[in-house]
Amino acid sequence: MSQFMNSRETVVTEAIDGVLRGAGGRLARLDGYPHIKVVVRADWDKTKVALVSGGGSGHEPAHVGFVGQGMLTAAVCGDVFASPSVDAVLAAILTVTGKAGCLLIVKNYTGDRLNFGLAAERARTFGLNVNMVIVDDDVALPDLPQARGVAGTLFVHKIAGALADAGDDLETVTAAAQKVIDGVVSIGMSLDTCTIPGSPKENRILEGHAELGLGIHGEAGAEQVSFQGAREAVETVVGRLAPNIKPGPHALLLNNLGGATQLEMAILAEELAKSEIADQLRWIVGPAAMMTSLDMQGFSVSLMPMTKEAERALLAPAAPTAWPGLDPFGAIEIHPLPDGLTPIQAMPSASPSRRALIERCCDILIAAEADLNALDAKSGDGDTGSTLATAANALKSALDRLPLADTTQLYRAIGMELSQTMGGSSGVLLAIFFAAAGDASAGGRDWIEGLAAGLERIRQVGGANPGDRTMIDALAPALGNLTNGLDAAAKAAREGADFTATIAKAKAGRASYISEDKILGHNDPGAEAVARLFEKLGDAG
Amino acid sequence: MSQFMNSRETVVTEAIDGVLRGAGGRLARLDGYPHIKVVVRADWDKTKVALVSGGGSGHEPAHVGFVGQGMLTAAVCGDVFASPSVDAVLAAILTVTGKAGCLLIVKNYTGDRLNFGLAAERARTFGLNVNMVIVDDDVALPDLPQARGVAGTLFVHKIAGALADAGDDLETVTAAAQKVIDGVVSIGMSLDTCTIPGSPKENRILEGHAELGLGIHGEAGAEQVSFQGAREAVETVVGRLAPNIKPGPHALLLNNLGGATQLEMAILAEELAKSEIADQLRWIVGPAAMMTSLDMQGFSVSLMPMTKEAERALLAPAAPTAWPGLDPFGAIEIHPLPDGLTPIQAMPSASPSRRALIERCCDILIAAEADLNALDAKSGDGDTGSTLATAANALKSALDRLPLADTTQLYRAIGMELSQTMGGSSGVLLAIFFAAAGDASAGGRDWIEGLAAGLERIRQVGGANPGDRTMIDALAPALGNLTNGLDAAAKAAREGADFTATIAKAKAGRASYISEDKILGHNDPGAEAVARLFEKLGDAG
Repeated sequence: MSQFMNSRETVVTEAIDGVLRGAGGRLARLDGYPHIKVVVRADWDKTKVALVSGGGSGHEPAHVGFVGQGMLTAAVCGDVFASPSVDAVLAAILTVTGKAGCLLIVKNYTGDRLNFGLAAERARTFGLNVNMVIVDDDVALPDLPQARGVAGTLFVHKIAGALADAGDDLETVTAAAQKVIDGVVSIGMSLDTCTIPGSPKENRILEGHAELGLGIHGEAGAEQVSFQGAREAVETVVGRLAPNIKPGPHALLLNNLGGATQLEMAILAEELAKSEIADQLRWIVGPAAMMTSLDMQGFSVSLMPMTKEAERALLAPAAPTAWPGLDPFGAIEIHPLPDGLTPIQAMPSASPSRRALIERCCDILIAAEADLNALDAKSGDGDTGSTLATAANALKSALDRLPLADTTQLYRAIGMELSQTMGGSSGVLLAIFFAAAGDASAGGRDWIEGLAAGLERIRQVGGANPGDRTMIDALAPALGNLTNGLDAAAKAAREGADFTATIAKAKAGRASYISEDKILGHNDPGAEAVARLFEKLGDAG
Repeated sequence: MSQFMNSRETVVTEAIDGVLRGAGGRLARLDGYPHIKVVVRADWDKTKVALVSGGGSGHEPAHVGFVGQGMLTAAVCGDVFASPSVDAVLAAILTVTGKAGCLLIVKNYTGDRLNFGLAAERARTFGLNVNMVIVDDDVALPDLPQARGVAGTLFVHKIAGALADAGDDLETVTAAAQKVIDGVVSIGMSLDTCTIPGSPKENRILEGHAELGLGIHGEAGAEQVSFQGAREAVETVVGRLAPNIKPGPHALLLNNLGGATQLEMAILAEELAKSEIADQLRWIVGPAAMMTSLDMQGFSVSLMPMTKEAERALLAPAAPTAWPGLDPFGAIEIHPLPDGLTPIQAMPSASPSRRALIERCCDILIAAEADLNALDAKSGDGDTGSTLATAANALKSALDRLPLADTTQLYRAIGMELSQTMGGSSGVLLAIFFAAAGDASAGGRDWIEGLAAGLERIRQVGGANPGDRTMIDALAPALGNLTNGLDAAAKAAREGADFTATIAKAKAGRASYISEDKILGHNDPGAEAVARLFEKLGDAG
């Protein structure tokens, strides 16, 4: 079994119950399991025209997902891809139909036509007023007089639903539904077949091909066409639809057949917006999974001529959340990028002592390149030393344009330099460190407090704590002792760095993925860099 | 290429544009393609706390789908499964942040933490008030201190979004977001890997197994477990979550990782309603695709402790249609079946002449069994004769309980008998024929007009017209001539039946799928049956 199900026999009943669990009391089902699987509006009072649709299951959210105020009154569910029984349809009709009557919305498949048709006859013997419309929107097979009903059915559900909800009578609702059917055209394309619950998947579509003009029951498409990409796919589909529509504005319903990703569906929408019929596509429903074929990686496009009445009905409120709503289709709103992405360079300023300090720091890191690389090779890809040396060299060459005399600006400028020259996680963390230090300094804290604020920030962003075998194991004690002088800071940093060699399990950073026997006995290279820095600075002082 | 896309490089930009095409002007993007992919609320006026989230793409509808009033202010999109750049995050922050400040909602992945973190620092240098929270809801790897952020993030988006929309200040919104993060736990399970655009699919999961505890980037799950079905899958998932939740009511978020069918998701919801923690699951969000991993056939369950405040925030209106809403989770409402499914048997009544007529009809059809089967074998499975003979025998044996004296009741009763004893499409059509005849008779039409009404109804329901090579080709002329007597009707029926042998292409029914050289020269068996019936009745008369 390659699906989240329990048995082929219980797929539909369990799924219906799962939907009802979260329906918030808006839906109910009839007590007819397993033979009669009917979902009805729980709040229905029969004062308006009832709309009943349904068919085989496997098209979810159709049809249960569209039961609710403003759309269907009841959905009759067959087993997967199998028409519901006459009794099931009759049960639905008898449950929801009052004096206002009932409209059956049936997709053009023989089983559905016959079973809904006979149920309608039986309901009429009770004196009920029952009409039936047959949706046949598929244009895949132009020579077949019995075109299939596919996703265009959603337009019928929504428009008839809006009219019924507004209190229109059965003949008006039926006529409006028939008008939609007369105008709507659809076609589908798929890159793969669907997986029928409990059955092995049929691999029918050749690599590099797509099926064009498919129904929603896993049957083969009208033809296999070569597949080049989304643009050509939409061109093909539009090429089949265009001869079947009249001039004038249309609503586009972009339906996911189940297994296409939302990325793919959005790309198809974009291609439709650039297609040869784009100027006729004024509205869109979706992209969304509305009338699916289980997990089929495909889509269908339905087009309906738009009138003021259709627009009003499609925009009317509807309770079912599976209905994605009608939206205008067309232009993209683009806002300019904000100012500030290109950082303003602070005015350079001089401070010989700070310049010397920074140069000294850089030289220390440059000198440690080989040792730090060797340490990093124990737990990583051996480039910590080179990364730091490259950044140090870049910082040295930037000294002439740094605002050396202004602590706040200097921290920020160093952070900016590092973020632009130093790759990898450590570069970003050091950039954050100095930027936060500048921030704290701007807030009135002294330079050591600024560095402490930087440490706090990288602990938050990086998620590392002391003892996690990172540079923080040296940096935190160093900064904690810096008010007692460089020697105290250096001693603390060294103890912290050496301690990292005893930490068996790294909890953050890349080394957290390395087995402990590879890292035990070796200092963390970041912590070692910090210790070296403070030690050598102390030597120089 | 096995996806609806144009190129790996343009997947995300084209998809974003596709979404914006149908966003009804509620969303805009920044003019930074291809490097900066940021979607913002088009109506945003910076008077409230801004919420910025994002990360790699491939998780649609997250994050663009959750931008809108009551949820996110901006979404920053990286390439598929790749963190967005610091510049992109900064552009989003600078665009949407006013005096009320900005909260960054970041899932716990190193790249996202660092890039969002550094962007926050750079934004702070502009004096902007920026907070950041890290979502780490995944409980798949209990020993890993850096738990991943997965679908539980949706609770953060919604609750922080409701508070920000209500005008709460940045610290209040941040504290509420952190409280959600502290409480929410998630775990995922999948039956298949995902397909990364432009890459071949990795088949990693053994047949009969599922991956448990997976992230949302196609990485392997924490473990592979044997897979028995939906019930056991939910048991396993609940077994991992249960130790991580406290007593008390929770909200359940049931997330489709992208490729599970809606049937499967609903079955999983049903199993959760029957699970050992069911009494703690008072609310549900979904099932829906919210935080996907492209087309992964899997699901995740997130649980959040519910408080009155959380309930209020989750129920607050939100513009994004990708948010499925919060609903109570639990009992199923079941309505009794309606009366009328078991047809009321009309009182039997006597009419020797009608009894004789019906018996004669039945005998004619029984006698024609072999001939009709032989004809049917030319275009079908050779059982038309047997089907009719079986029905005729059943009808004969029912004669004692038929209301022979009442035309309306008799037609209806014959329809009912046929619908119960005769299989296949033709049985249903004949049942409809007699039911509609009864209906018309009840409406005051004579018995011949009743039969004409039956014909009209089966033409509508069956979709067949004269000339389509069906029994209608004989029945329509026969009924049309019946007022002129049986001989006229029989002659017309014979002409019509013989005409079907010249129809090269069947347009309805099963024979429409048969090539013309197989059917030319042979009468349609249904039409032949009608012709025989009228001819033999005439002989007898």
